[in-house]
Amino acid sequence: MFRESIKVLDCTLRDGGICNNWDFSVETVRAIYKALSDAGVDYMEFGYRASKKQFPPSESGLWRYCDDDVVRKAIEGIESNMKLGFMVDVGRVELDAVLPADQSVFDFIRVACYVKEVDKAIFLVNHFNDKGYNTTINLMAISQSMDVRLDEALQQIQEETRCFAVYAVDSFGSIYCEDIDFIMSKFQSQLKDKIIGFHGHNNQQLAYANSIQAIIRGADILDATIYGLGRAAGNCPLELLLSFLKNPKYNVRPILDVIASHFIPLGEKIEWGYLIPYMITGALNEHPRPAMTMMDSPTERNKFRELYDSLTSDEDAP
Amino acid sequence: MFRESIKVLDCTLRDGGICNNWDFSVETVRAIYKALSDAGVDYMEFGYRASKKQFPPSESGLWRYCDDDVVRKAIEGIESNMKLGFMVDVGRVELDAVLPADQSVFDFIRVACYVKEVDKAIFLVNHFNDKGYNTTINLMAISQSMDVRLDEALQQIQEETRCFAVYAVDSFGSIYCEDIDFIMSKFQSQLKDKIIGFHGHNNQQLAYANSIQAIIRGADILDATIYGLGRAAGNCPLELLLSFLKNPKYNVRPILDVIASHFIPLGEKIEWGYLIPYMITGALNEHPRPAMTMMDSPTERNKFRELYDSLTSDEDAP
Repeated sequence: MFRESIKVLDCTLRDGGICNNWDFSVETVRAIYKALSDAGVDYMEFGYRASKKQFPPSESGLWRYCDDDVVRKAIEGIESNMKLGFMVDVGRVELDAVLPADQSVFDFIRVACYVKEVDKAIFLVNHFNDKGYNTTINLMAISQSMDVRLDEALQQIQEETRCFAVYAVDSFGSIYCEDIDFIMSKFQSQLKDKIIGFHGHNNQQLAYANSIQAIIRGADILDATIYGLGRAAGNCPLELLLSFLKNPKYNVRPILDVIASHFIPLGEKIEWGYLIPYMITGALNEHPRPAMTMMDSPTERNKFRELYDSLTSDEDAP
Repeated sequence: MFRESIKVLDCTLRDGGICNNWDFSVETVRAIYKALSDAGVDYMEFGYRASKKQFPPSESGLWRYCDDDVVRKAIEGIESNMKLGFMVDVGRVELDAVLPADQSVFDFIRVACYVKEVDKAIFLVNHFNDKGYNTTINLMAISQSMDVRLDEALQQIQEETRCFAVYAVDSFGSIYCEDIDFIMSKFQSQLKDKIIGFHGHNNQQLAYANSIQAIIRGADILDATIYGLGRAAGNCPLELLLSFLKNPKYNVRPILDVIASHFIPLGEKIEWGYLIPYMITGALNEHPRPAMTMMDSPTERNKFRELYDSLTSDEDAP
């Protein structure tokens, strides 16, 4: 698929950081940054800008905070055309900790929110736009929000913000290609001058397939992570997405190299990807939380039927 | 997706057997047979009926041969409505070793061939139909055979056989949903009274997504394997397919149980699934052979760029 306007955003450090408490070494971060730059990736999300009051820095790695100085030092001396950004969650950011864009190493800020929180997200993107950043709104848990509230949220975003892109985020890894068609139609009917983005999770091995479907239906910014690293089942693998896109500016080889050097060893320490508890929550359109809890327990992690029954018990109720 | 006519065929023992030289214990085979029966799966492929002259029984497990007596004994005492079958490869079967259907435990025989071998496959399915079996022709490596030779092969199958189904087999795990649309149109235009089947490989994490697309476009028999067990990157996971199909006759719980009891332990001994060498051959529309060779060598298995370059070197040639 070649369409000049398609852009790729890597969120390995941000979504992948959920797997290891953002505990990537500076050396690893440099290797990732270099690989993404060499591969021609358009945007890189470095992590979160989490509130240090709510999440003490002693308890998480550097990339949960993305301090400008830390990031500037980490990328020093590496040639790159990528635009850098970070994510904030509604209600988990201190606005004072965000410098004006002209003093920052970052170009863009993505605001993640549930559809019901869209007013708070609109306040944040307007604040960040006033500070000079490009912004996006990432609507989470889209699989549980495909009703009239979504239309209203999109209409508000269109009318009240200057964000350049709006994402459908399949947080639960639950949607099918038919849902993509439905979502894209909805987004396109409300958003007149904004790019549409898609961020998938891989609970049902559909993150990449849904990304392709979103591209076919007109999405122009796609999230991916190296080797699919990301919360629970992970995300759309960057190496697959780059292989699909026929734009000659992309080169998958540096991504293959950094998988060999850093992600194969990482896979021996931490776990992500297609695993049955995550598949169950995805297929049932549920948050992966109960599956993640279960996976942490060596005695519980293979009790698949119990998980399935616990999530479907309402159906059997009289 | 609910359509009464959709049937599910499990080929865990056959395609999965490629991973462990068909060395499943009788106890494991009974557990699989029971789980599939309880789950409401329609068809079960027990393995191959390989030529014992070409493949000495001392060198492979029982399910490479699927002797009637062995299979009959293995399933003894387990209640089931499944139809049983085996696969033969063109040129690798002894016809004398196939009993008349009324003396056999098997209901169906699937003949696998490349498009260029279709005449040999037609001979075989006619032979097996004469013996009283239901038959299918499974056209392998479809991603490299989407041209006029495919039309001719399908026309011949329509005119010269009584097989009940014809499969598109994505042996290399290379096709995208757009290819499914193309293939389904081709198959539908040539095959007037035959069911269309799809068998995917998961090199690009698309086996399940492509199966859904095939269903949407009219395929009525779908292959899957438990936990995706199958050659190299494996197949469409049965637990995903059953979760997608809304026919109440299917029940995913027994499949979850057998994954916990038998496939999680198996995964500690042998390797299959989404791994970068297989992703590379899939993305480049190549046979997984060089990737499989590479994966067998502890010193070579992570040389991803070398594999990629070796398969794309022609493109760079002057």
